[in-house]
Amino acid sequence: MKVALIGGTGETGSIIVNALLESDIPALKIIAIVRPASERKPDVVALEKRGVAVAVVDLEGPRAELVDVLEGADVLISTIHVSALGSQIPLADAAKAAGVKRFVPCFFATVAPAKGVLTLRQLKEEALLHAKKIRLPYTVIDVGWWYQLSIPRLPSGRIDSATPLPVNFIAGDGNTPSALTDVRDVGRFTARIIADPRTINKMVFVYGDIVSQNQIFDMLDEMSGETTKREYANAIEKSAFDNRMKIFYEYWYSMGVRGDNTLENAEFLGYVDGTKLYPDFQPITFEAFLKEVLDGKSVAIYRTLEQNVAKAER
Amino acid sequence: MKVALIGGTGETGSIIVNALLESDIPALKIIAIVRPASERKPDVVALEKRGVAVAVVDLEGPRAELVDVLEGADVLISTIHVSALGSQIPLADAAKAAGVKRFVPCFFATVAPAKGVLTLRQLKEEALLHAKKIRLPYTVIDVGWWYQLSIPRLPSGRIDSATPLPVNFIAGDGNTPSALTDVRDVGRFTARIIADPRTINKMVFVYGDIVSQNQIFDMLDEMSGETTKREYANAIEKSAFDNRMKIFYEYWYSMGVRGDNTLENAEFLGYVDGTKLYPDFQPITFEAFLKEVLDGKSVAIYRTLEQNVAKAER
Repeated sequence: MKVALIGGTGETGSIIVNALLESDIPALKIIAIVRPASERKPDVVALEKRGVAVAVVDLEGPRAELVDVLEGADVLISTIHVSALGSQIPLADAAKAAGVKRFVPCFFATVAPAKGVLTLRQLKEEALLHAKKIRLPYTVIDVGWWYQLSIPRLPSGRIDSATPLPVNFIAGDGNTPSALTDVRDVGRFTARIIADPRTINKMVFVYGDIVSQNQIFDMLDEMSGETTKREYANAIEKSAFDNRMKIFYEYWYSMGVRGDNTLENAEFLGYVDGTKLYPDFQPITFEAFLKEVLDGKSVAIYRTLEQNVAKAER
Repeated sequence: MKVALIGGTGETGSIIVNALLESDIPALKIIAIVRPASERKPDVVALEKRGVAVAVVDLEGPRAELVDVLEGADVLISTIHVSALGSQIPLADAAKAAGVKRFVPCFFATVAPAKGVLTLRQLKEEALLHAKKIRLPYTVIDVGWWYQLSIPRLPSGRIDSATPLPVNFIAGDGNTPSALTDVRDVGRFTARIIADPRTINKMVFVYGDIVSQNQIFDMLDEMSGETTKREYANAIEKSAFDNRMKIFYEYWYSMGVRGDNTLENAEFLGYVDGTKLYPDFQPITFEAFLKEVLDGKSVAIYRTLEQNVAKAER
């Protein structure tokens, strides 16, 4: 199986590469498509050392070059950077011309309606709409919110290094259930889904656990022996639109206030429940993740995130 | 079952009212929602005489009035006029507030992608997107193109009265199959679908026959003994955008050139094949319809269409 990947050095993309390399997919060949500007970056060189072929192409450049690279690919996965979501249109056109058998556009987030709630979701939908227009077979993968972006810091400061973007506020009343996944499982789920004929032309929803924010705080307090301050952000809707972090807070409004990120809503919106497709798959539980964090064993995979957020706030 | 209907005096709406009144749905109550300006129109008075309750409400007026009318409705069907499609947003909000169990937004046309091909489709999708946002249970019903709008005139002029909008051109090479339905069956299919729990939160595709334009011309020539002139409109894409009838020709481009209006594409786009849900349902075949037309027995249900088209061309 030949898998082409856009964004292979990003947060989600690198997790998917790891999972693919560890998977039992037979005769797997991974091609990371990178921009000319990134060709010599250490992350790209590291991918090559791990056996990933690297193809340097400009998604907005001549289509023939992109078609050449995609020729013979069974799957094209996009975990493209937010700022380049629009490039998925020429990417999809090239994939269609190359006969790619499955396009996985950049979703990998929470369950939410296509329009009117999440700015990012709305942007991501454009690639799906285009795939449907040109009849390019697709699979949408949504994974809920990540464990790693769901926990507050403790008063003692002992888990600060594991919380690059701490969540010390509670959206809504804190009792709304929300589907969460350990970011490492995003890769493992994706490796299953892209090799599965049942998921062609479907939206698939996977998750590791379904918990409310109050449950998260309770669990953390109990396991740590500390008492985390809970700031109820009932006005999150209004504040979101005054805030430069609007696209980030929209997710918390959607999850915590609207309650969009649930299995029930996923089914209403037409998703397939991916956890039922793979009953043998044992996702990391939220409790197991919390234990790792408290034991100082979690890997802080969001080193760059803090910097990006700081940049966005400026 | 209480069914509220918008557009009950229009081409599709009146066909649906007929089919509902003839259906075996138990304890059926139909409420036609009409604009204040239409209250005393003969078509509305005729509906009342047939046992349809009429509620006069402005869709863009105070929500409470609309919620009152929709209270207790099991199904809300919209066959709203093209010019008022935007009013489906406040309509859906009111339906949600009233606890309506199923919203059937105005689709009732061909299979096509949500965006980028048909202007009308794109406008219609807004109501569906909104229903998904507010979690209003819905059913989309698409019926292909109508038999009654698919046939050319004969050189003798003998079927002119049955062809208010004759199709004497062929879109593309004429060999692309397209799903068609007799307009009378649109009502009968709808009566089945809205009473069926399997169709909740689904897009349903129904059709009476699947034929190409060349097959239609061949059939008509053979059955009539005449020879109809075939004008191959290969440049239909370009002409459509220079033409005031753009939204009409877009359908022919989608059906004839792109080949969107097929069962295969419906399945790709996630529709349920409604003909498989009702194996006992015997739709009128295209051949039976043609025979009616040639025997002078067809009902010219598009009396007003010719006038509307003439108006649009001016």
